[in-house]
Amino acid sequence: MKKIYLDHAATTFIYDEVIQAMTDAMKEQIGNPSSVHSFGQEAKASIENARKSIAKLINAHSSEIIFTSCGTESNNLIIRSSIDNLGIKRIVTSALEHKCVLETTLDMMMNKSIEVQILKNNEKGEFSLEELETLLKDEKPTLVSIMHANNELGNINDIISIGNICHKYNAYYHTDTVQTIGHYPINLNELPIDFASSSAHKFHGPKGAGFAYIKKQTKLKAKITGGGQERNLRSGTENVYGIIGMAKALELSYQNLEQDQNYISDLKQYTINQFKKHFPEVIFNGNSADLNKSLYTLLNVFLPFKNDMIGFQLDLKGIALSQGSACSSGATKPSIVLQKTKTNEELNQHSALRISFSHLNTKEEIDYLITSLLEIAN
Amino acid sequence: MKKIYLDHAATTFIYDEVIQAMTDAMKEQIGNPSSVHSFGQEAKASIENARKSIAKLINAHSSEIIFTSCGTESNNLIIRSSIDNLGIKRIVTSALEHKCVLETTLDMMMNKSIEVQILKNNEKGEFSLEELETLLKDEKPTLVSIMHANNELGNINDIISIGNICHKYNAYYHTDTVQTIGHYPINLNELPIDFASSSAHKFHGPKGAGFAYIKKQTKLKAKITGGGQERNLRSGTENVYGIIGMAKALELSYQNLEQDQNYISDLKQYTINQFKKHFPEVIFNGNSADLNKSLYTLLNVFLPFKNDMIGFQLDLKGIALSQGSACSSGATKPSIVLQKTKTNEELNQHSALRISFSHLNTKEEIDYLITSLLEIAN
Repeated sequence: MKKIYLDHAATTFIYDEVIQAMTDAMKEQIGNPSSVHSFGQEAKASIENARKSIAKLINAHSSEIIFTSCGTESNNLIIRSSIDNLGIKRIVTSALEHKCVLETTLDMMMNKSIEVQILKNNEKGEFSLEELETLLKDEKPTLVSIMHANNELGNINDIISIGNICHKYNAYYHTDTVQTIGHYPINLNELPIDFASSSAHKFHGPKGAGFAYIKKQTKLKAKITGGGQERNLRSGTENVYGIIGMAKALELSYQNLEQDQNYISDLKQYTINQFKKHFPEVIFNGNSADLNKSLYTLLNVFLPFKNDMIGFQLDLKGIALSQGSACSSGATKPSIVLQKTKTNEELNQHSALRISFSHLNTKEEIDYLITSLLEIAN
Repeated sequence: MKKIYLDHAATTFIYDEVIQAMTDAMKEQIGNPSSVHSFGQEAKASIENARKSIAKLINAHSSEIIFTSCGTESNNLIIRSSIDNLGIKRIVTSALEHKCVLETTLDMMMNKSIEVQILKNNEKGEFSLEELETLLKDEKPTLVSIMHANNELGNINDIISIGNICHKYNAYYHTDTVQTIGHYPINLNELPIDFASSSAHKFHGPKGAGFAYIKKQTKLKAKITGGGQERNLRSGTENVYGIIGMAKALELSYQNLEQDQNYISDLKQYTINQFKKHFPEVIFNGNSADLNKSLYTLLNVFLPFKNDMIGFQLDLKGIALSQGSACSSGATKPSIVLQKTKTNEELNQHSALRISFSHLNTKEEIDYLITSLLEIAN
């Protein structure tokens, strides 16, 4: 059976060149980067070269890149250490954040008595900058955590305006950039961002490697302590091959960015058009049908019918996509993001599909998806 | 130039079969284990098979194996969560533990007001079980953290007696098994151990993968929160290929264990004999010359002369070994373990070498090491 993968927001296949680079490194880079002998120093040089390469691609200083095991760990490090080491008393976030931000914020509220304010969102998943500004005016020591682009709706948030408001009132700004790094040009030097996070497996790199962007002069401390690796911000022997693979994947992603963006944007527009043609009453959730306001890699569709088995039925036809975030450990209940942007009545009448693309998807695959959905609907 | 690697306690090369298994998985296992579709479930099945395989090899239940990114993260998870979730008020440990145990214990003392008791050790690096028992008699809620085998001296501790004393007084017992899992048969079901830790790159697996052993019915909670992966004990997308590689490496390690143990023990004895022959005044640190009381993979030598450049000089001759733990981020100052087992006078008269072996090292390599040391000494 033909297998079609349309779940690239959950995870991506690894570029062949990345697998090759990692395989070579696994064979050749024997040493522990903390060892002072030549085997160790060779491994150390590899990860420092990877750090420089990544920093250059996102316009950061290499000392601002802290390697971790994933985006979730990066977000945990940033939020938890902000509370413990920056004197933060309040977190301002939204109900549409990734679970690793929400659960960690909740933990800080329950166990560290941190005040939590949830920004309201409208039915499109948009926030009010005025509300943010009103909240921050008291200049209580605050961490604002609003993601760059939503992993379910695809909405791209105005991180420049959010960051400027944060800094106007001396709040720190953390943004989860897991869905955007590697997919959009990003200039961290110039953005009003203090902290960001990234995960290699979202841009055709390996699982098990990510990084935190921690702006110079912010005094975060490690949440995993020991040998003092990663400038004392993350102890533990480095995932040398994962880091090498992550740097290679980011390099290739930015090399191909314009071409991939054009191709995938066209494919997304085609998908929108096909849905409109075959399901005239289709609704696109959030801002995901607006290519200027959403990820070109993601389309969130509200089908004009309700079918709780739709993911399973598509899977049987060889089509993999998701109905919410993958990071909720196999949960099949309705996504929190949809619950927070839709009425119960709407949720009872429609099933949602999150379709997320890569440059290897084709219009033929979209045609097969549409045909399959028509079969299921009838 | 011939290159000789004698630093396997710092990290090991990866088995070819492990690299192959990981490369295959990187090509074939596209999905996120949290995705409910077939791509995701295939990845999920791979990590669950890995978990079962690892659990079987060390006689644990698979629900007791929690995948992490390394030994350091595992030890952090166990110690930090014991304090936060088990009501622990005191940590009893030793000055000879790995830095990730010592630094984390220190952090708990400074920031959580936890009482810390450091067990005294003698010049061999041995502890007194009587002192441990005396300390625990008050039954204050305590976590005891004493490693299975020391990563610098090679001393193997009597974890059965330590664990029995702990349980007699209702203390939890955590043991860092990073140097022993994969090198010794271990039966976690029968041992009086509540928590243990392991790192794949110490037994010819990949860096970036490790696990925590957390005994059933101990109520630890995650220190990295989010999507609830790893039975809610460690969020973040799993390092699928790293986990597959770790399971394969452990399988091969136990398959070859007897043969490797015999070969390496013989090589270690040969090394001891050669040192005695060519440096009659040599001293072997800790219990490392006693094959019944120390790791067969490690010999810690106190040379009959002092030369602060010895590591560097050996490196120039192509020989990689270490003078302390590698996990202290390139530190070249005298190892804490040696400081705690030697007098200043002794440290001023001798240089230490930690020689750690694998099944690929040869007597010819040891001969070359001895020749090189004789050249340097004269």
